[in-house]
Amino acid sequence: MEIAVAFGLVIRRLRIARDLTQEQLGFESGLRRTFISSLELGQKEPSLTTIAKLSNAFEINMSELISLVELEKGEH
Amino acid sequence: MEIAVAFGLVIRRLRIARDLTQEQLGFESGLRRTFISSLELGQKEPSLTTIAKLSNAFEINMSELISLVELEKGEH
Repeated sequence: MEIAVAFGLVIRRLRIARDLTQEQLGFESGLRRTFISSLELGQKEPSLTTIAKLSNAFEINMSELISLVELEKGEH
Repeated sequence: MEIAVAFGLVIRRLRIARDLTQEQLGFESGLRRTFISSLELGQKEPSLTTIAKLSNAFEINMSELISLVELEKGEH
């Protein structure tokens, strides 16, 4: 699995687990809803700053978020 | 500290610990030497794919690399 796809699946799962819409996550993270949509679909890949913003919005460490991506990538 | 600066310091430290030149790290990671130089100076920030390539070259997990960046960022 391409890493951007794994990242997108993890972001989508975390967002839904927190009962957030893409718009709400956009507000929490300071990212545009359309960008979040592209990330979730694996159509765009995040920069380190984007990873930091999303981790912050989800209230987890960046390294925890990346661990989930590694797990997702390894499983498929 | 800006996150790109913390990332750059970590990359530089890992590269030197492994006794690699920027050119050698470029060869190992598939990144250009000039890009590695900009990353180390915190002038550019990495994408997730770049983080994956560098982790691979250093033979550590991406999450371990990001943990080092979080540590670096927290310390300054």
